[in-house]
Amino acid sequence: MDIAALKTANPDHWMKATAIRALAMDAVQAANSGHPGMPMGMADVATVLFERHLKFDASAPDWADRDRFILSAGHGSMLIYALLYLTGYKQMTLEQIKNFRQWGAITAGHPEYGHVDGVETTTGPLGQGISNAVGFAMAEEKLRAEFGPKVVDHYTYVIAGDGCLMEGISHEAIGLAGHQKLGRLIVLWDNNDITIDGAVSLSDRTDQRARFAAAGWKVLSCDGHNAADIDRALTEAKGSDQPVLIDCKTVIGFGSPAKAGTSGAHGAPLGDAEIATTKAIYGWEHGPFEIPADVLDAWRAIGARGAKAHEDWKARFAALSGTKQAEFTRRMAGEAPKKLESAIRAFKKQISESAPKVATRKSSEMVLEVVNTICPETIGGSADLTGSNNTKTAGLGVFNADDRKGRYVYYGIREHGMAAAMNGMALHGGVKPYGGTFMCFTDYARGAMRLSSLMGVPVTYVMTHDSIGLGEDGPTHQPVEHLAMLRATPNVNVFRPCDTVETAEAWELALTSDRTPSVLALTRQNLPTFRTEHKVKNLTAQGAYVLADADGKRQAILMATGSEVEIAMAARDLLQADGIGTRVVSFPCWELFEEQPDAYRRKVLPAGPVRVAVEAAIRFGWDRWLYGERGRREKSAFVGMHDFGASAPAPTLYKELGITAEAVAEKVKSLL
Amino acid sequence: MDIAALKTANPDHWMKATAIRALAMDAVQAANSGHPGMPMGMADVATVLFERHLKFDASAPDWADRDRFILSAGHGSMLIYALLYLTGYKQMTLEQIKNFRQWGAITAGHPEYGHVDGVETTTGPLGQGISNAVGFAMAEEKLRAEFGPKVVDHYTYVIAGDGCLMEGISHEAIGLAGHQKLGRLIVLWDNNDITIDGAVSLSDRTDQRARFAAAGWKVLSCDGHNAADIDRALTEAKGSDQPVLIDCKTVIGFGSPAKAGTSGAHGAPLGDAEIATTKAIYGWEHGPFEIPADVLDAWRAIGARGAKAHEDWKARFAALSGTKQAEFTRRMAGEAPKKLESAIRAFKKQISESAPKVATRKSSEMVLEVVNTICPETIGGSADLTGSNNTKTAGLGVFNADDRKGRYVYYGIREHGMAAAMNGMALHGGVKPYGGTFMCFTDYARGAMRLSSLMGVPVTYVMTHDSIGLGEDGPTHQPVEHLAMLRATPNVNVFRPCDTVETAEAWELALTSDRTPSVLALTRQNLPTFRTEHKVKNLTAQGAYVLADADGKRQAILMATGSEVEIAMAARDLLQADGIGTRVVSFPCWELFEEQPDAYRRKVLPAGPVRVAVEAAIRFGWDRWLYGERGRREKSAFVGMHDFGASAPAPTLYKELGITAEAVAEKVKSLL
Repeated sequence: MDIAALKTANPDHWMKATAIRALAMDAVQAANSGHPGMPMGMADVATVLFERHLKFDASAPDWADRDRFILSAGHGSMLIYALLYLTGYKQMTLEQIKNFRQWGAITAGHPEYGHVDGVETTTGPLGQGISNAVGFAMAEEKLRAEFGPKVVDHYTYVIAGDGCLMEGISHEAIGLAGHQKLGRLIVLWDNNDITIDGAVSLSDRTDQRARFAAAGWKVLSCDGHNAADIDRALTEAKGSDQPVLIDCKTVIGFGSPAKAGTSGAHGAPLGDAEIATTKAIYGWEHGPFEIPADVLDAWRAIGARGAKAHEDWKARFAALSGTKQAEFTRRMAGEAPKKLESAIRAFKKQISESAPKVATRKSSEMVLEVVNTICPETIGGSADLTGSNNTKTAGLGVFNADDRKGRYVYYGIREHGMAAAMNGMALHGGVKPYGGTFMCFTDYARGAMRLSSLMGVPVTYVMTHDSIGLGEDGPTHQPVEHLAMLRATPNVNVFRPCDTVETAEAWELALTSDRTPSVLALTRQNLPTFRTEHKVKNLTAQGAYVLADADGKRQAILMATGSEVEIAMAARDLLQADGIGTRVVSFPCWELFEEQPDAYRRKVLPAGPVRVAVEAAIRFGWDRWLYGERGRREKSAFVGMHDFGASAPAPTLYKELGITAEAVAEKVKSLL
Repeated sequence: MDIAALKTANPDHWMKATAIRALAMDAVQAANSGHPGMPMGMADVATVLFERHLKFDASAPDWADRDRFILSAGHGSMLIYALLYLTGYKQMTLEQIKNFRQWGAITAGHPEYGHVDGVETTTGPLGQGISNAVGFAMAEEKLRAEFGPKVVDHYTYVIAGDGCLMEGISHEAIGLAGHQKLGRLIVLWDNNDITIDGAVSLSDRTDQRARFAAAGWKVLSCDGHNAADIDRALTEAKGSDQPVLIDCKTVIGFGSPAKAGTSGAHGAPLGDAEIATTKAIYGWEHGPFEIPADVLDAWRAIGARGAKAHEDWKARFAALSGTKQAEFTRRMAGEAPKKLESAIRAFKKQISESAPKVATRKSSEMVLEVVNTICPETIGGSADLTGSNNTKTAGLGVFNADDRKGRYVYYGIREHGMAAAMNGMALHGGVKPYGGTFMCFTDYARGAMRLSSLMGVPVTYVMTHDSIGLGEDGPTHQPVEHLAMLRATPNVNVFRPCDTVETAEAWELALTSDRTPSVLALTRQNLPTFRTEHKVKNLTAQGAYVLADADGKRQAILMATGSEVEIAMAARDLLQADGIGTRVVSFPCWELFEEQPDAYRRKVLPAGPVRVAVEAAIRFGWDRWLYGERGRREKSAFVGMHDFGASAPAPTLYKELGITAEAVAEKVKSLL
């Protein structure tokens, strides 16, 4: 690259882009940690995007109709922090930039949603951003169809690196985007030929352009250091009826004589001497963190550029009917409709009366029939297990290129892509995504599910076939450790309801959750209704509660979740017949019980009686409730799984693996 | 499809293929569960493959130089069970077929490795088989380079469906295979246009042929119901210098008038009436599970076809030098070299004397320098974090298309693909794979890691940056729940060594493990050497042991793993200075401690003293050791994480999050 020629050809652009490069070098150096090469390589592309294309108003980061900008290559976090500072986002002071990666600063190592305005999603784990972006673009299409292009009319731009494109999740994301013909999704590929280990050619020879084309994308390219060429490509990208990949040929660590074009620029500070040399080559005669006033002014003008569009949008929004304004506002705020509470109550009442014997996956469908009628914001789906997950209710319509009002997504066999798209939709706002697969395949979606928790995105995972109760499909499909895995993860409510009433309560909690995602662990097999006495109160909200108390002196407490509540109740019958007073505690959500006041927890789990927990999963974690909550080691036991499952009909498995009412009753007796 | 014409054109082939179809229909019907459509659709392809191409000897399922056949679309398990029965694998009786998916039968719902001869890997979770296959093909290339084509010269054949190809892991696998130019890998794509939800077009418009070509594959196609055309494509596929995709156009549920070509044939029995009609169309006049003698004879001849090749191979093997024969046999048996034990001991001794202060990721590299010299079977790698995982030792060489003797794999940013390839390599035998990424990104590899455990494949996961101790990269990169997730999984040893000596012991256990995979959780930050007194015995093998006992009356026991052992030891100093006798238990592996005799566990964790556990991870699971092992709730506490981490230098994080020697000492005092 001939830097002198670039400087001369377009000095205004050059200085603006170089401001990004200088801040990135300086901040990484000050932190002695971080990734300077990527911001240096993509500064030109980002400058052109923000200056000429991105619709945003730095003074209003939450403007609903802003274009979304997603830095999928999140390790290049200084790129976005520099952009936010330069364009004038209020939170992003120079002080924050100077404290890059330090305790208490908003300039975290990788960009974190909720931590700083202007960061639309948390990135860093590679491939997540580009996959979230598919969800953002889907939400935009859906809301545009619902509320009209006068209030919803924006693009989703992504910067992705080779790492994002090598990750498996990218395959699922680009396949979904291609299928959905998301023309408002534009991915800028930082094609710099370098990964951490060295040249991309060490590990890959994929023709990315051909690959994206094969998935139904429009593919463009540009010289990633030529402002005019970048502008041309971005202009051409807009108005496509397919998602667009722009192959931006760049040099990592652009301008650094010792490190440009090498993995040495990727993840380590350049060093003071190399920074000085590089700045001299740039013609940037300023000390660390110094941005000359004229350059800063030019950038701040870019940040203010969108204010007019924002004002115009406000006027168009104000022209909507009051009802429509209120609905849009409610939807974007993520508030549940007022009617939801009473509808769930009415449903519970009806179920308590009719007491159906159905699988909780079917219970979930019954709840969704109610919910989806009341909540136009729900958008459901499944990773190719629609009929098994029971996620599609009547009249939802299918969301696809021909029907943007459809509310059901056939995600295909893409668990990870589905979870990431759900995160993106929820982050965009205006829709409430839920999606299903088999509980065991949370394994495939873990990367994105963890980010739901870390970001505090209230999506709902409908995970059916939640134990050996699925039967013949065998151990590859039978979760045993997954409840523990999910319970071990911070900020996720794991619901394992025992009947249709609890399922309705769990759904109500999921749909009204503000910043905690929910997992519904649901059965394949039929279960009776235990909650036959209608309670207005949402008992599941307490996490655990007394489902049936002891007749006579309380000698034993049985704790169970989901399908094993039936076993606990049958064990109670056996024990009571022998005169052993037995309480059954239904325990649908550990996390919520943990949050209860001690007095309530003490009421449910008093000291004294024998305790037996029963769950068709491994014991890991149960000690908390067996011993840790006024229990005693010598007076407690667990009935459940000790290893992976097996292939056989469900009743055989429960019997052969010893998860039966008889086994529970025997345990109690042996401990008395 | 004109079935009459097919029958007439090639009646011998037709009857053989139809035997598969009939068995699949009958077995699924008898089980009232399973997937008939795929075996019916791929019966012709499988028949041609087994009859004319696959090198195998049904009487010797373990013949080292057999071609490997992998049913990636594992739900079609009746295809492989039928093939094993028809070709005469001894275990696979008709009785087993009749007991498809029943308790105690080897005909599990999905094919399980170790459960039945002839099943090379466990499949069912989609995309795993095709990704294992990449590892199988890599192992073959490596062993051929080492032992010569006279003893190693085989192909890996895969049957994969649309589900396998939609999963993200397939992207990683085909990218890796294309990069590695694995010409002996041939994937037969069951291109039937159907997934569980319906037509593939509901969720995908990917041009799979173009996609594979973009990843460097040779792409062929055939009519999947025309034996001659299948044979032509398979013949053409062999001898390629690229991996090969054969696009086999098929009809799911082929021949069923009501269900062929629909998702109705996918995952449910056809029903007795439809089976009768279909068999009539096939011209198959036999009752359930009946195979006419002439057809069975023809199939058994196919099963015996490889005996000659097998005998020839034995002769060639016998012509090798005794040393080479012994080495090949040792390698294929997965036995560690005799020298390993003494080498590890010598290393431990030297480390106890020199007492280096290094990160355990560096310790691991130091161990590998020893191991890789002694064990030619190790094949290391990293998902693009070589310099961070410290997985590449001097002189390994890089395994790639130009050097099949190389022993280091640049896996690229492909955690899931790496884990699945490692499974495949280990299953193939002859090599011992280990691979690294950041501990947090076990999330991306979970699907394959679970299968390591389920199959009992002793691969080693080198997971560095195992806590907030990684510092500035922040919560997206800081594991907090991952130790619990892994510990909750059956059959995996999770090692978190506290210094270089424990790291060496953990590696020794990993390398000599027979059927349990290992995870090494290693630090980014430096740690002192605590094991300065040399012990010949592998103390880590006991899971936990007394690292430093109390001076004076034992009032407290501190339990810690990995980097927090340093904190526990410092806390002990503080407590002892106050006259509080304190034992420190280093707890590198819960699973192995759990296996110890009660007497040993009691010795390490006696009743009485206050117990405090310290680990820079969430508490989940620790209650087992705090209360469950003769401990008392009121006399125990945990010092560790309560939520996700943050971005800051590691010492700041430990301090701000309260994981310090002072905090541990205070906890102890508050409990005394």
